[in-house]
Amino acid sequence: MTPKIARFLAEQQPATPCLVLDVDRVEENFRALQHTLPLARIYYAVKANPAHQILERLVGLSSFFDAASFEEVSACLDAGARPEAISFGNTIKKVSAIRAAHAKGVSLFAFDSQEEMEKLAKHAPGARVYCRILVENEGADWPLSRKFGTTVDNARSLMLRAGEMGLDPYGLSFHVGSQQTTTRAYEIAIGKVAMLFTDLTEAGVNLRMMNLGGGFPVRYRDDVPEIDQFGDAIMTAMVEHFGNNLPEMFIEPGRFIVGDAGLVSAEVVLVCRRDPSDPVRWVYLDIGRFGGLAETEGEAIKYAIATPHDGTAMGPVAIAGPTCDGADIMYEKSNYRLPIALTSGDKVELLSTGAYVTTYASQRFNGFAPLAEYYL
Amino acid sequence: MTPKIARFLAEQQPATPCLVLDVDRVEENFRALQHTLPLARIYYAVKANPAHQILERLVGLSSFFDAASFEEVSACLDAGARPEAISFGNTIKKVSAIRAAHAKGVSLFAFDSQEEMEKLAKHAPGARVYCRILVENEGADWPLSRKFGTTVDNARSLMLRAGEMGLDPYGLSFHVGSQQTTTRAYEIAIGKVAMLFTDLTEAGVNLRMMNLGGGFPVRYRDDVPEIDQFGDAIMTAMVEHFGNNLPEMFIEPGRFIVGDAGLVSAEVVLVCRRDPSDPVRWVYLDIGRFGGLAETEGEAIKYAIATPHDGTAMGPVAIAGPTCDGADIMYEKSNYRLPIALTSGDKVELLSTGAYVTTYASQRFNGFAPLAEYYL
Repeated sequence: MTPKIARFLAEQQPATPCLVLDVDRVEENFRALQHTLPLARIYYAVKANPAHQILERLVGLSSFFDAASFEEVSACLDAGARPEAISFGNTIKKVSAIRAAHAKGVSLFAFDSQEEMEKLAKHAPGARVYCRILVENEGADWPLSRKFGTTVDNARSLMLRAGEMGLDPYGLSFHVGSQQTTTRAYEIAIGKVAMLFTDLTEAGVNLRMMNLGGGFPVRYRDDVPEIDQFGDAIMTAMVEHFGNNLPEMFIEPGRFIVGDAGLVSAEVVLVCRRDPSDPVRWVYLDIGRFGGLAETEGEAIKYAIATPHDGTAMGPVAIAGPTCDGADIMYEKSNYRLPIALTSGDKVELLSTGAYVTTYASQRFNGFAPLAEYYL
Repeated sequence: MTPKIARFLAEQQPATPCLVLDVDRVEENFRALQHTLPLARIYYAVKANPAHQILERLVGLSSFFDAASFEEVSACLDAGARPEAISFGNTIKKVSAIRAAHAKGVSLFAFDSQEEMEKLAKHAPGARVYCRILVENEGADWPLSRKFGTTVDNARSLMLRAGEMGLDPYGLSFHVGSQQTTTRAYEIAIGKVAMLFTDLTEAGVNLRMMNLGGGFPVRYRDDVPEIDQFGDAIMTAMVEHFGNNLPEMFIEPGRFIVGDAGLVSAEVVLVCRRDPSDPVRWVYLDIGRFGGLAETEGEAIKYAIATPHDGTAMGPVAIAGPTCDGADIMYEKSNYRLPIALTSGDKVELLSTGAYVTTYASQRFNGFAPLAEYYL
């Protein structure tokens, strides 16, 4: 918790649940990543948190932006981003979205199938395009692999044809999965994609860019490697494969930029035992999987939780949300422990929840309003 | 698809994704359930779809309402429901919500723990309360069991104490799980809870009500038993256990009332093969797990899908949503097949999606606006 957030919570006592985010921390994280990977161009993954205050701050830092939809393209433009600074990174785009982005001056698009390439050729003629390769997501707490990316062979044949179709075959991309906790995943992926890059270059395709995706982790309940370790591993792998002839390098961090900049303030609604003899207490909060904490699905992302009783005796708990939905359970198998003294009405903080929380919130499941948001 | 919905889609060609729901079908479903279980009082589970048009129609039919939050209580009152017709059925309630509902005249509350009973005694003194018993959810496609309900022993001791605490120990409840496809689940649960009912009555507690919960299924891709079979099984079990001395019977249908009254109109964004040699095509729609179809988590609810090419040759597909999230996959393992001719830009309909769709929709994940809604 930053001093600014602590002061806001103490002075304002905002109604819960709410996200409170310190935009200065966003800037610090951006600068830290820039320092670690000075040769990489940072495309902030807008989907992690599209708040205007965040986008504006990043525009001021000359960040680039990775947009998942035309709505996110618009949000970047509204915050002052130049269209040349925006990559439309979703490989699945409505024709209407491609046309609208192209009309606004966006000229960089991702794809990973022949069908999408044909849509781009028709509705964004002349655009720079990059093809996403399917890579292993081992080590990622929120893996992505089955839905996106294509094989090296298919990417090769598509990129060989892109020029004929009036597109500019600009680069290749991959994604090692979100909250990737091992540097090895980047090394393996770079090796795989660099081979294709070299192969296509030798075949006469004017490739200029490697998009290394995002995935850089945030410290939640458990430790993760420092960002420097990812930077070192990536640069070592890039130099190993490309020598002095490095292509442009793009990275698409989202979670890393905003995750630890914010926290969710929540209220304990009920603490009880399902059976009085059960050692495990059930702790129900006023936010759950459908109030924004969607990444607790399968207990994938394990947030650290601060309570007013920290330092006193603890006991095992299951943690659930406030809805009548049986699926609205955040943690039942991850050995969470919270203070015995915790009781209904207590305020708690879910730490490092600045990423992938606000936009996931349901519009009104069980009648509950979406998460309130404060940007300091 | 009802004629009214078909006409609306043909004439209005609404932008997708959207829910289109025929409120007349809601009335038909309500009357069918009333006909099947004439002795049961119907508390519509507002969380299934809280649209004002639906609540108003049900108020006109003298329905009762099961609310999950104070916001849902308010929605019922706004639609003209009397406070006496509302049950606050969530066993996990903020103190502020209990107080607000009590102040509005709501006098019937659920609980399943000592802590919640104490909150009710303090903040809704004199209220009628019912205790939720944990029962098996086998046979339910969307089970609830781990999060709610308590043991028979604990319920017994709580109900014995409710009177001393100034509450009216009104009844017992259970829930066999949502989209329950077997009548046997109700029979077993009624047997279990009826024994406690009799036991408490003999101990001098003035119990008057059995709340049988909801769970009545809707036909999605696969067949389910007719509602009459559930009605017969329930009445047979009730008579077996209570003879001529039947308590008041409450049921809390949500899905059954609104599910097949609506459909989601969606657009195919992309059809592709991840590898050209793969027989499985990936079909991406402009709605997915975070656009409202949350119950496809774990491929639990399997919606039927209509396309403009129905009747032509089919092939295997995986079906996913439009976001950059790897978890936004609806069906990959459920052997869905769709026409080979299906292509980007086609409109499709996800049938019987009137329940548990609109409110689940994220407020703007990946920039996408929540589902539009039309009530006819």
